[in-house]
Amino acid sequence: MKLSDYSKGHKAVSAINALATETIWPEHTTPLNTRDAEKKQFWPKGFSAGTAHAGIKPAKKDLVIIKSDEPSSAAAVFTRNLCSAAPVVVSKEHLEQSASSIRAIICNSGNANAATGEKGLTDARTTAEKTARILGISSQEVLVSSTGVIGSFLPMEKINSAIDSLSAVLFEASCAKAAEAIMTTDTFPKYFGLDISLSIGTVRLSGIAKGSGMICPDMATMLAFLVTDAKIEQKLLQEMLSKANEKSFNTITVDGDTSTNDMVALLSGSSSNTRILPGSRDAQVFYEALESLMTFLARLIVMDGEGATKLVKIRVEGAATDLDAQKAARTIANSSLVKTALHGEDANWGRIIAAAGRSGAVFNPENASIQFDDLLILQPGYVSDFSEENAKKILSRNSYTIIVSLGDGAGSAVVHTCDLSKEYIEINGSYRT
Amino acid sequence: MKLSDYSKGHKAVSAINALATETIWPEHTTPLNTRDAEKKQFWPKGFSAGTAHAGIKPAKKDLVIIKSDEPSSAAAVFTRNLCSAAPVVVSKEHLEQSASSIRAIICNSGNANAATGEKGLTDARTTAEKTARILGISSQEVLVSSTGVIGSFLPMEKINSAIDSLSAVLFEASCAKAAEAIMTTDTFPKYFGLDISLSIGTVRLSGIAKGSGMICPDMATMLAFLVTDAKIEQKLLQEMLSKANEKSFNTITVDGDTSTNDMVALLSGSSSNTRILPGSRDAQVFYEALESLMTFLARLIVMDGEGATKLVKIRVEGAATDLDAQKAARTIANSSLVKTALHGEDANWGRIIAAAGRSGAVFNPENASIQFDDLLILQPGYVSDFSEENAKKILSRNSYTIIVSLGDGAGSAVVHTCDLSKEYIEINGSYRT
Repeated sequence: MKLSDYSKGHKAVSAINALATETIWPEHTTPLNTRDAEKKQFWPKGFSAGTAHAGIKPAKKDLVIIKSDEPSSAAAVFTRNLCSAAPVVVSKEHLEQSASSIRAIICNSGNANAATGEKGLTDARTTAEKTARILGISSQEVLVSSTGVIGSFLPMEKINSAIDSLSAVLFEASCAKAAEAIMTTDTFPKYFGLDISLSIGTVRLSGIAKGSGMICPDMATMLAFLVTDAKIEQKLLQEMLSKANEKSFNTITVDGDTSTNDMVALLSGSSSNTRILPGSRDAQVFYEALESLMTFLARLIVMDGEGATKLVKIRVEGAATDLDAQKAARTIANSSLVKTALHGEDANWGRIIAAAGRSGAVFNPENASIQFDDLLILQPGYVSDFSEENAKKILSRNSYTIIVSLGDGAGSAVVHTCDLSKEYIEINGSYRT
Repeated sequence: MKLSDYSKGHKAVSAINALATETIWPEHTTPLNTRDAEKKQFWPKGFSAGTAHAGIKPAKKDLVIIKSDEPSSAAAVFTRNLCSAAPVVVSKEHLEQSASSIRAIICNSGNANAATGEKGLTDARTTAEKTARILGISSQEVLVSSTGVIGSFLPMEKINSAIDSLSAVLFEASCAKAAEAIMTTDTFPKYFGLDISLSIGTVRLSGIAKGSGMICPDMATMLAFLVTDAKIEQKLLQEMLSKANEKSFNTITVDGDTSTNDMVALLSGSSSNTRILPGSRDAQVFYEALESLMTFLARLIVMDGEGATKLVKIRVEGAATDLDAQKAARTIANSSLVKTALHGEDANWGRIIAAAGRSGAVFNPENASIQFDDLLILQPGYVSDFSEENAKKILSRNSYTIIVSLGDGAGSAVVHTCDLSKEYIEINGSYRT
């Protein structure tokens, strides 16, 4: 079965379970059971969510508020695209003013509020204010996020009424429902959670994400929101998030394009007594859980990449430095020639070594070797002597690893990519409607 | 008619004529008539070519020797890929030893002699020696070039007999025939020539090129060979070639992948009396002709890009520096999202501005504007108010220009790209056979 088949009829649970099964979770973590994803308790203590249909998308829920009962410390990383969307600008402002006391994240899908100038900024601020009003908090305690079409103004009347409608409901939307409300052209909602055993007790870390679907015209793409009831002060929280982000969302590529709205936020609630101190063993355990959950959500995004049928981990090792390894891994993972060969299940090592060669990484190609899972494809000295049949067996898997060893030093890097199929062209060549 | 239709039945002449008609040639140049391309006289005085069928490709000519009656000064630029092919290494050595006295270029198609280690180097040297022997010159006077499959050894017996067979024939292959012999999966041969009126008389500049077809498995791609009967000393020749290369072959992209064998060489013969002196008006006129011919050949390559149906010039202006402009132009031209939108004839300016935003170029997106040919699509302040119908008219053309003005300074850059179609996936996803 192709990975993409999992998504037929929004079979999120089978896609998520398939990936969870092959994931090696760190010690002291217990994956939550996806059967409970529709329950409110999938969220950590002190967090809840409400979803609404604002009418930006024709029929589906397109707005979610994730709220924290108590002031949370918040960490976030944002797109580095110069054309940052208005909600990115406003969320950055609010974090500067109030990073130790964030109470809510509001996110709409269907419209990115990007390339919208001054009016866009006003709209993002109004959205935060309105949210603050119904929750009885102040507007700088709200993070704002949008995803969807670039270059259109938000329909503020619809958004205002949708927020109003949430003032009348209990916040009982599950992680799965919250993940659904931030989907654009994702074919399934993306969410997961871990229980983490610390010396101070068990804490929960849950997250939702949306990925790279860019049908009409540009879905401004990657978003992820994570929440935990572990109590972590803001500086440490930001350090952990930034570091884990480098290892997870910053190691994925679908088509090499980065968006105007990318945002990853992590809230740490203050309703429990489980404070994690900087430098503690608990901090290390929590960090590992965070990195693994973020990597999991990142891989879900690649798995649901536009037109993707395969999830491929590119691991470059033996590079002079980590930076060299990263250059090589990214260039291989973004190469259209490599990605079409992955799609064709073709053991085309020449494209892989040529991509590494043009990446800017410094190495001697004569010392390089290439491996598909456990099968050696290229040995140093350009010796290539492998069974095409065995290679084909690996390449026909839904998910596998390509290891490129540059034979030079101790630098390494990992990038997750997908294949490039005709469906990608179909999806992205279509007219805006 | 789509550009790709020109290639049906190798209608090179109509493709070349179509592009020649829309090209604005510099003053003092006269394009040669493509009706004469089959005549020996399409070459400048003192140059000729012989082609052979070595049997690397099943039926077609796959080997060409371009020879100069007298010692030529030679200039060349090569791929920067670390995995440089053996012929690239050997040609660099020969240029170091003998750049003012090059007598021949030998090129085979069908096999790139790349990723072939020590044996590859020996084979490339043997090819040069054999060529030198039949022409009665020394081997360092020969440049060697190969294009085709990466990772296989050259069939040296076949190549040796093919070179032998050329010792018995008159060198009467036309530019068109020479261009055919270096094709891999190009759909038509690429060649052109200019007469240039200098104060010292009229000189001729002719060139052949091959482009980016990479079916099975990696055609190591771009090659171009130019020859002129203008007499230019080696240092000036190299300066001119390097500069023109930046403006021509270094401004094209089909899929962002660069190959292991790329090479552009220019020979300047010594059989005429038309010496061009550094700093002279003639040097300027010749340079402009060189740049325009190289740009023409470069655009032919993009036009014949794998699966391409459109040839699009991306011009970025108003950048803080030329480097900023180049970053923006290259990122736009390589973006899969932009290229699929071009294929879908979709006026999707959001993707263009988002690509510029992530390119590393420094600018304020609020000041940016975008134009398709003469139609303004985006005005500063994110004002977008244009007729979709008029935009569609332009985007349905075979060839047009996208101008992105960053509103910041005087930096500018041009990149030529093509659209990304399902045929690209089809061509590159196929198995090596």
